[in-house]
Amino acid sequence: MYDSFQDIEKPTLLLDEDRAKKNIDRMVAKARKNGVTLRPHFKTHQSAEVGEWFRERGVVSITVSSVDMAQYFVDHGWTDVTIAFPLNPRQISRVNSLARRCQLHLLVEDEGVVEILANQADHEVSVWLKIDAGYHRTGIDWRNQGKILSTALAVIESQNLEFRGILTHAGNTYALRSSEKIREAYGESVDRMLSVKGMLASSGIKAAVSVGDTPSCSIVGDLREVDEIRPGNFIFYDLSQFHIGSCRVEDISVAVACPIVAKHLDRRQLLIYGGAIHFSKEYLRDPSGHPFYGSVAILDGGSWNAVDPDSRMISISQEHGIVQASDHLLDHVSVGDILLIIPIHSCLTANLLGGYRTLDGRLIEMAKL
Amino acid sequence: MYDSFQDIEKPTLLLDEDRAKKNIDRMVAKARKNGVTLRPHFKTHQSAEVGEWFRERGVVSITVSSVDMAQYFVDHGWTDVTIAFPLNPRQISRVNSLARRCQLHLLVEDEGVVEILANQADHEVSVWLKIDAGYHRTGIDWRNQGKILSTALAVIESQNLEFRGILTHAGNTYALRSSEKIREAYGESVDRMLSVKGMLASSGIKAAVSVGDTPSCSIVGDLREVDEIRPGNFIFYDLSQFHIGSCRVEDISVAVACPIVAKHLDRRQLLIYGGAIHFSKEYLRDPSGHPFYGSVAILDGGSWNAVDPDSRMISISQEHGIVQASDHLLDHVSVGDILLIIPIHSCLTANLLGGYRTLDGRLIEMAKL
Repeated sequence: MYDSFQDIEKPTLLLDEDRAKKNIDRMVAKARKNGVTLRPHFKTHQSAEVGEWFRERGVVSITVSSVDMAQYFVDHGWTDVTIAFPLNPRQISRVNSLARRCQLHLLVEDEGVVEILANQADHEVSVWLKIDAGYHRTGIDWRNQGKILSTALAVIESQNLEFRGILTHAGNTYALRSSEKIREAYGESVDRMLSVKGMLASSGIKAAVSVGDTPSCSIVGDLREVDEIRPGNFIFYDLSQFHIGSCRVEDISVAVACPIVAKHLDRRQLLIYGGAIHFSKEYLRDPSGHPFYGSVAILDGGSWNAVDPDSRMISISQEHGIVQASDHLLDHVSVGDILLIIPIHSCLTANLLGGYRTLDGRLIEMAKL
Repeated sequence: MYDSFQDIEKPTLLLDEDRAKKNIDRMVAKARKNGVTLRPHFKTHQSAEVGEWFRERGVVSITVSSVDMAQYFVDHGWTDVTIAFPLNPRQISRVNSLARRCQLHLLVEDEGVVEILANQADHEVSVWLKIDAGYHRTGIDWRNQGKILSTALAVIESQNLEFRGILTHAGNTYALRSSEKIREAYGESVDRMLSVKGMLASSGIKAAVSVGDTPSCSIVGDLREVDEIRPGNFIFYDLSQFHIGSCRVEDISVAVACPIVAKHLDRRQLLIYGGAIHFSKEYLRDPSGHPFYGSVAILDGGSWNAVDPDSRMISISQEHGIVQASDHLLDHVSVGDILLIIPIHSCLTANLLGGYRTLDGRLIEMAKL
């Protein structure tokens, strides 16, 4: 099966371009309908060409996760860029270079860093306070009114720093497994952000509210209470998002084509060329609680619309993947065939594979960061 | 603390060159003492320059994990190369190109693949049977005498294929946690390989025996029963190897320098610039069973000789790492400082970081595969 990939020699990230564009269309339409700015996170695809698909649909503001990635996209003509990572004081001089070339948005959560930035910024930058609205990865606790207010004031009083608002990432939605729970988590996170906004307003400080995670932005219909959303993963989706309920399998626009290199009928396993240096070690758990590292896509009309429920990549080492295979799969594939694996986490997989191949065989480059 | 790394801006893989060379010296001496060939696995470092450190110590045979990696090292003058991955029939034409340029060793475990290779190999290659001596990742089960014999005979009868012997990887040692158990596992694996060798000998087939995993090669003293060892990780070691008992912390030659970007005293956490795209998502479990993704090195005399037992990287996302920090650590570091993290798995970390910085600040390149 899958003979349309005859010239694929090694693990290759396939991208269903139509599907990715539909995913963008859907999010653009949702943002427009809600009157919020869509500032998609480009760490998912890290590709100038894929970025153009957003630009063609009217997107002008983007999010990135590092200074290097900001520079890559500024080099490709993007002029409104948020680095969604707490400002790293060791990169101030590169931040200054970028601020001369684009409207640069930075995240702070520490008055010490605001002071460093205030002293060293030699061009105007937009500053957002990173708020912890429940995820506890980073940010100022949303209840810590004193710290939020003093940090906002420190920004407002500094030359070259323009206070824009408050920003959060509700990464806790990634652990949820129903639309109902995602809506609740989103509601709680937004309520907390709005209470911070209200507190700042009562001190005469106007703050925009930026949120964004793919589960919430995919599942929640009404996003009107915020000003900006920053989802990234939605362009590709992946098995994690499918398990969360953010997408259908037929919305997932990436799969990894892996050569089958051995077939073990006794253990009902296939060994594929495709391991931790291609997929990362991200895993989900099957219904029995065992970890797995990817699912086998069923090819249908040139793309994939379902996964084989009885075949899973159950083990992964540096270059090897072991697929526990269904009877049907074992009967239909041979050593030398290509197997398509839907990744657990498309952002990490794309980062590792470093480029895309469309379903008609065209290569799409990524940043080399 | 750690101010000697002033120009480090982002996650950077530090390499203690002296320590790495000592690790090589020790393994070279052990191989020599035992009269076995050391064919180190170069997937760990993937660097032509680091490869030269082995060459200077008399190593002439190497192991790699992909055709791309073989080509990189052949381009850098290596002439005796084992691709320790089951032959991928989709790469036969590249294998042929390599076989014209070096003594190439390939792994097979399937008569179908032997047939493909026999039909398409246009230059002589050495062939090893991949044996499963208990790890169950891949290879022919060591008890399956019929299949081993028929596959060996198929190789022997084919033009351009030279049968060399039997090869295994006892990856099961990675799950063990005492020298005693590693010795037992090694003994069992070697006994099984020797029984296969004996079986082949009784059919008049001479087979060399190749084994190799860093825990066994580090811990077992007597390796005389085999012909070749293929450890790789030992040049760097890492936290996994330390927990297995393969090395001391003061033998670990790599650490990742990560800028501290936020300090959360309420949660006793540090946020560092250093995440899954730098470390991979490999983890160990702490004494309470919680996963962790790296330990904090204590700098001592320019390198690291211990880890902080009360500080661990407890969570990791794409670019962020969260370090649960000891009181001492919290008292002694500030935002903007560099924290050194000992990785769980140095091979995956090196693959992600793509290059090294020595302790005196020199950069060492890796292959761009």
